[in-house]
Amino acid sequence: MKTNIPERVSALREAMRQQQLDAYIITGSDPHLSEYPADRWKSREWISGFTGSAGTVVITADKAGLWTDSRYFLQAAVQLENSGIELYKQGLPDTPSIPDFLRAELHAGQTVGLDGQTYSAAEARSLGNELERKGILLDTTHDLIDGIWTDRPAIPENLIFEMPEELSGVPVREKLDRINNSLHGQGADCLILAALDEIAWTFNIRGTDVAYNPVAVCFAFISENESVLFIQPKKLTLDIAEHLKKEGVSLADYSMIHKYIAKLPENSKVLVDARKTNVSLFDAIPKGCVIMEGLSPANQMKSVKNETEIEGFRNAVVKDGVALTRFYIWLERQMEEGATVTEIDAAQKLSALRAEQPLYIMDSFATICGYAAHGAIVHYSATPETDTALRPEGLLLIDSGAQYLDGTTDITRTIALGEPTEQMKKDFTRVLKGTISLAKCKFPAGTRGSQLDILARKALWDCGINYLHGTGHGIGHCLNVHEGPQSIRMEENPVTLKPGMVTSDEPGIYRAGEYGIRTENMLLTQEDSETEFGKFLRFDTLTLCYIDTRLVIVPMLSVREHAWLNKYHQMVYDKLSPLLNEEEKAWLKEKTREI
Amino acid sequence: MKTNIPERVSALREAMRQQQLDAYIITGSDPHLSEYPADRWKSREWISGFTGSAGTVVITADKAGLWTDSRYFLQAAVQLENSGIELYKQGLPDTPSIPDFLRAELHAGQTVGLDGQTYSAAEARSLGNELERKGILLDTTHDLIDGIWTDRPAIPENLIFEMPEELSGVPVREKLDRINNSLHGQGADCLILAALDEIAWTFNIRGTDVAYNPVAVCFAFISENESVLFIQPKKLTLDIAEHLKKEGVSLADYSMIHKYIAKLPENSKVLVDARKTNVSLFDAIPKGCVIMEGLSPANQMKSVKNETEIEGFRNAVVKDGVALTRFYIWLERQMEEGATVTEIDAAQKLSALRAEQPLYIMDSFATICGYAAHGAIVHYSATPETDTALRPEGLLLIDSGAQYLDGTTDITRTIALGEPTEQMKKDFTRVLKGTISLAKCKFPAGTRGSQLDILARKALWDCGINYLHGTGHGIGHCLNVHEGPQSIRMEENPVTLKPGMVTSDEPGIYRAGEYGIRTENMLLTQEDSETEFGKFLRFDTLTLCYIDTRLVIVPMLSVREHAWLNKYHQMVYDKLSPLLNEEEKAWLKEKTREI
Repeated sequence: MKTNIPERVSALREAMRQQQLDAYIITGSDPHLSEYPADRWKSREWISGFTGSAGTVVITADKAGLWTDSRYFLQAAVQLENSGIELYKQGLPDTPSIPDFLRAELHAGQTVGLDGQTYSAAEARSLGNELERKGILLDTTHDLIDGIWTDRPAIPENLIFEMPEELSGVPVREKLDRINNSLHGQGADCLILAALDEIAWTFNIRGTDVAYNPVAVCFAFISENESVLFIQPKKLTLDIAEHLKKEGVSLADYSMIHKYIAKLPENSKVLVDARKTNVSLFDAIPKGCVIMEGLSPANQMKSVKNETEIEGFRNAVVKDGVALTRFYIWLERQMEEGATVTEIDAAQKLSALRAEQPLYIMDSFATICGYAAHGAIVHYSATPETDTALRPEGLLLIDSGAQYLDGTTDITRTIALGEPTEQMKKDFTRVLKGTISLAKCKFPAGTRGSQLDILARKALWDCGINYLHGTGHGIGHCLNVHEGPQSIRMEENPVTLKPGMVTSDEPGIYRAGEYGIRTENMLLTQEDSETEFGKFLRFDTLTLCYIDTRLVIVPMLSVREHAWLNKYHQMVYDKLSPLLNEEEKAWLKEKTREI
Repeated sequence: MKTNIPERVSALREAMRQQQLDAYIITGSDPHLSEYPADRWKSREWISGFTGSAGTVVITADKAGLWTDSRYFLQAAVQLENSGIELYKQGLPDTPSIPDFLRAELHAGQTVGLDGQTYSAAEARSLGNELERKGILLDTTHDLIDGIWTDRPAIPENLIFEMPEELSGVPVREKLDRINNSLHGQGADCLILAALDEIAWTFNIRGTDVAYNPVAVCFAFISENESVLFIQPKKLTLDIAEHLKKEGVSLADYSMIHKYIAKLPENSKVLVDARKTNVSLFDAIPKGCVIMEGLSPANQMKSVKNETEIEGFRNAVVKDGVALTRFYIWLERQMEEGATVTEIDAAQKLSALRAEQPLYIMDSFATICGYAAHGAIVHYSATPETDTALRPEGLLLIDSGAQYLDGTTDITRTIALGEPTEQMKKDFTRVLKGTISLAKCKFPAGTRGSQLDILARKALWDCGINYLHGTGHGIGHCLNVHEGPQSIRMEENPVTLKPGMVTSDEPGIYRAGEYGIRTENMLLTQEDSETEFGKFLRFDTLTLCYIDTRLVIVPMLSVREHAWLNKYHQMVYDKLSPLLNEEEKAWLKEKTREI
């Protein structure tokens, strides 16, 4: 525990008393509801000392709790010790939800407060409804943390950089035109953008304000008459400012967005995504405007990659494949030599090899390098406390990726460090059947991801096995490695798969205490054919990296799966070998040989 | 055209003028929104002369239109000739929807009328919203047809009969207790039931008021204090009335439901399914009540068959299998002898053979007997005009079923009447792969039908083929052959598949102008196993009838599909042969021999 946590909680309670709030919620989100917030917005960590990536703190006059999920039960228990903040383990049957907790602790007429900048309009509405059932009020207008966090970090002022037109394929002016056309088609006049990746895509800009996502902190407003980028002036070089102005973009200070929105003319039809816009900004829309809720055109257009972006992805996976090949060669040598390599060592080496590749910006997420039983922890990230040395036995699961200026990657491979058991091979082959079955399917235009999800799971379900994460998420073009709106998962999502979308394909099997297996490739949706029964689509596998055939039981593969694997390996060798030296080539030749 | 149609339309327009309605909609539904209405409610047919099973008539001061789908384009064109009613072909790009039409024809402030007894509350709400966009009003309180249809048939007064406890498995009193428990669990006080099958299931009654569905016209209200069945007294024998009273049921006249609902005490929490309750009844709920919309517990409980009902289904499919075997033997003999058999002859023979079976009540829908190109018309029903003689060539698709007091059946088989072409065999085998793939899958508890739908389509999609109907619908226990709430189809439906549900499995390929192929079995959802990854379910194929192996290309089947087919045929023979004579046995032995 950080020793000053109780003082901070006390200070917050004093602020609550002054504002007549009976409970206060701290989410640790930023005003853009980003997956990774900048330090300024790490308020959950500041108030509780808990450093995990997910959790919510709730403070009342006499209780304080942190809600987090099973990934963080151990870490949170340690970090909250003696802090006076109780751990609420989400997902356990006896753990109350936050609304349940608040309804039990407060009585009708009392008020729950939160900083509306850190809560989506959709979630605030749902929380408000839940509290209203007991007559409890919700006030989203107080950022109490700001008053007591005296050395709070500033809003990031890192320079933004341009995504050049050679790599984006479409100039800003054209994107704005397309967005305005789409707004017009829906009967909307204007659009508010708060999601950083949607803004980055629209304005062809990138940044380094947060970890793993090459985005910059800003807001945007788009209409036929005016498109405004709200950004700290210090983040702009003269060049970029000039370029944006030439493309028809007005520039305004980051802090001006609320005032600007508050002055929208009466009867404006404002398109806004309540799930991606903080409630404070959402509530700034004047009452006389017509709010139209829905996915933003930027979100939808961003998900369908153009030819230039696809070309970039094809370059990125070659670079990534070269780095991965070199990494697995290095790892094999280390193991042969009996050198000590830990999970963290391996992850760092892989990052270093990626960083040697042209246009590398950063990793696209924290590498999951899970050896043996650690592989069964789906969101495992090695810490100095858990870091384990690899031994010449068992399985190693590495899920990793990079941001290159021309594309983003996300790949998982599982390899055997020694002689695998029969069960390991069976499980590996089941997972591989899933990866292949999804990769090689053909489906009518208009199909949703939830309809295809079973293809990745069927070989598992047949044996009474399942995995509880999604099978596929969208991947941005030098943007968030997890993006929407499409997905391939058991849960329904009405978004259909469209040609140009890039989506992951990542089934897995996790045997608690033993090992985890996941084989993940990136899939590009493409047109396949048009028949008397309609238009059909298919996937093209983008990712280029060998699959450990020592773990494959060939008779378990169908004829077509077997053929796919050999053909895939041929492609991996053909595309990567021109960039490898003779020794590397020979190694890869062996790993990708026909089986 | 019926010669008096223009007079009827004129009379309606006069009634519209009197009530100051500027347009009037006639759906032809009954107050229970049944798939098959009794004659009294065939108002669409009365006003237009159109006898198809789906369509909506809209009359304005100077226009009259019938909207119907592609199944009925030809029939409607003939039946509407010289009627003054124009045909609007639904699904064609240039056809306006009914709300579009009304918005184009009427101006703000004008009023559209309809009989709220023939329109669901959910659809009325949606239509009202659509019309409101142009300031057009919707008035659902006028049954204008009643005033002008002077010889309108009475409400059916057929006697109801009991579904005995030996076949229902659960007495009425227990069903009412379970429903009240479910209401209590959801925080509701009472339930309004308008769907005839939900009422029939709840009160263990059956009837013959409409075609194909063994239900009786009635309403019901259920609460802890009182359960009331609203039914015409003439429909009740003394015995049944006594029995229902003993089970705690109050009886009231059918016409009293509105008055009863209108007197519900203030603050009553009323559960009602807006999609299955007519808007007139829905609007009778007093303003002071809390309306909770959702599936009724009766609908959900009805879909999960108990052990007794399942046993009944298993009896019903044996009887059905015997009738089908005898039918296909008869048909083969007729063809061999060169006798003339038309589609209608075949359908009638099949009904007659089913009627010989114990506890047969009626067919469960109009048999689809589609020879050659007729098989490609998905909802084909032979009429004297289309009836075709079968020839010793091409394919014959027969989709049929029966209501037995112990269970309902629905089965499709496609057979070759002569030497099939290679394409017929390929298509047949693709469809069969789909039927089998769904039938033999295993899936986690909590899976929805839309997740499994692809299993029935994958072999088709792989070749750029698709069918546009659902793969599976729920099947009632001596009730509607099409029931919910579950389904297996491309469209999302949040209802999960539960052990005890009976659902059809019916992929198909339709080559317009050539032939249609469909192979349909009924599947019972069952528990499979519980592993460290959770509970798994599977299907058990109920239907017992040979599949024409002359149409199967064995090498196109996977090893497991091939094994399934041989095992299925063994089961068909084992279960049916004890009820067949020696000649029939020998015939079935040959049809079900291992391939």
